[in-house]
Amino acid sequence: MRTRFHQGLEELKAKLLAMGGLAEQAIERATEAYRRRDLKLCNAVHEGEQAINQAEREIDELALDLLAMQQPMAIDLRFITAVIKINADLERVGDQAVNIAERVTNLLTLPSVDLPVDIPRMAATVSGMVRRALESFLQGKDDLAEAVLKMDDIVDRMNDEAYVMLVRKMHSNPEITPQALDVLLISRNLERVADHATNIAEDVIFWVRGADVRHHYGAEESALEKPQ
Amino acid sequence: MRTRFHQGLEELKAKLLAMGGLAEQAIERATEAYRRRDLKLCNAVHEGEQAINQAEREIDELALDLLAMQQPMAIDLRFITAVIKINADLERVGDQAVNIAERVTNLLTLPSVDLPVDIPRMAATVSGMVRRALESFLQGKDDLAEAVLKMDDIVDRMNDEAYVMLVRKMHSNPEITPQALDVLLISRNLERVADHATNIAEDVIFWVRGADVRHHYGAEESALEKPQ
Repeated sequence: MRTRFHQGLEELKAKLLAMGGLAEQAIERATEAYRRRDLKLCNAVHEGEQAINQAEREIDELALDLLAMQQPMAIDLRFITAVIKINADLERVGDQAVNIAERVTNLLTLPSVDLPVDIPRMAATVSGMVRRALESFLQGKDDLAEAVLKMDDIVDRMNDEAYVMLVRKMHSNPEITPQALDVLLISRNLERVADHATNIAEDVIFWVRGADVRHHYGAEESALEKPQ
Repeated sequence: MRTRFHQGLEELKAKLLAMGGLAEQAIERATEAYRRRDLKLCNAVHEGEQAINQAEREIDELALDLLAMQQPMAIDLRFITAVIKINADLERVGDQAVNIAERVTNLLTLPSVDLPVDIPRMAATVSGMVRRALESFLQGKDDLAEAVLKMDDIVDRMNDEAYVMLVRKMHSNPEITPQALDVLLISRNLERVADHATNIAEDVIFWVRGADVRHHYGAEESALEKPQ
């Protein structure tokens, strides 16, 4: 029975990793759609959303099944409940990709203009954050999670810079306001992705350190009885 | 022991309700700060964020404690794991209030201009969504949750209208671009709050109906063995 439980935990890890892959792919496709002005890629992002939602539900169900199977140890409990939270964040990364694809779809109806914002670079940074946050969780490395928090500051700065540049541009060339706004919102969507990666990293730090603290008191006793 | 577990569940409900109150209060303060151009209220939103983060951690800990106490029935498991997800959404409603307060703080450095967007009305709508989503959860009413999903469409339309009006305004009066952008971003922050309410409502529908389905097969058996 214990073995079956641990097989389930391994399956949960594998599914979460695959979910992370889907979320990253969605961001990459949306960014590529922007770079190449490609409506087909926008549509691919929309279609991919179904797969992400389905994966989210499967992970939630498996997590519940594991919680129901038998009384897991406190450390496993923390792991499984962290999966439930991280799963929700990954699903919302997918939502942000859909939002970006919608802005790109709108951009494609407008004349192409050159704007001083490096969206692909920002997208690569936030994708890297999601990947590292997930790695930090699956490997239980809170120092890797700390690195993700630092990257969030960089993305915030990129987003602020994009904001200033685009406001200036709209001011001097009001006729390109619609395009500049779409790019401004894409930049904000990417910043939201970074926020989700940050949420994951914060959960990792909380759960990893919490588990460590509990370990000293014996992981198997009820958390209600633990010394505070 | 069962009684103690059920006392814990009641405490969890009460804490989640209080957390919802804090999140709503944050949105209301941020909106009032906008309406009255009040820097003190902006600061109050920032200060309130600590209390929200603290409440989030306490709810997570209590949820974990309950999961660890004994083997809960499947229906209780679903409830507790739903609390963990909803808790995260409420915390992010608080984050959106902080984002709004930041935009208002910026607006206060700029000349006041009249813009054709009814932020207080939009804020009242999204606050109502958060409240109803939470009610639908605590009362286990999926029809109330469905109503929240419908309200999300209204908020999306409000946000789209705000976008169109503000772009038009920026186009005709480029000198008010910074103010118009702040209001545009506040509108989007409120739309994000509505998204969190929607996430909660979707969880409620999923958990309530899932629990119902399982109830027919006996709530206490392991979910892994349930007929698919």
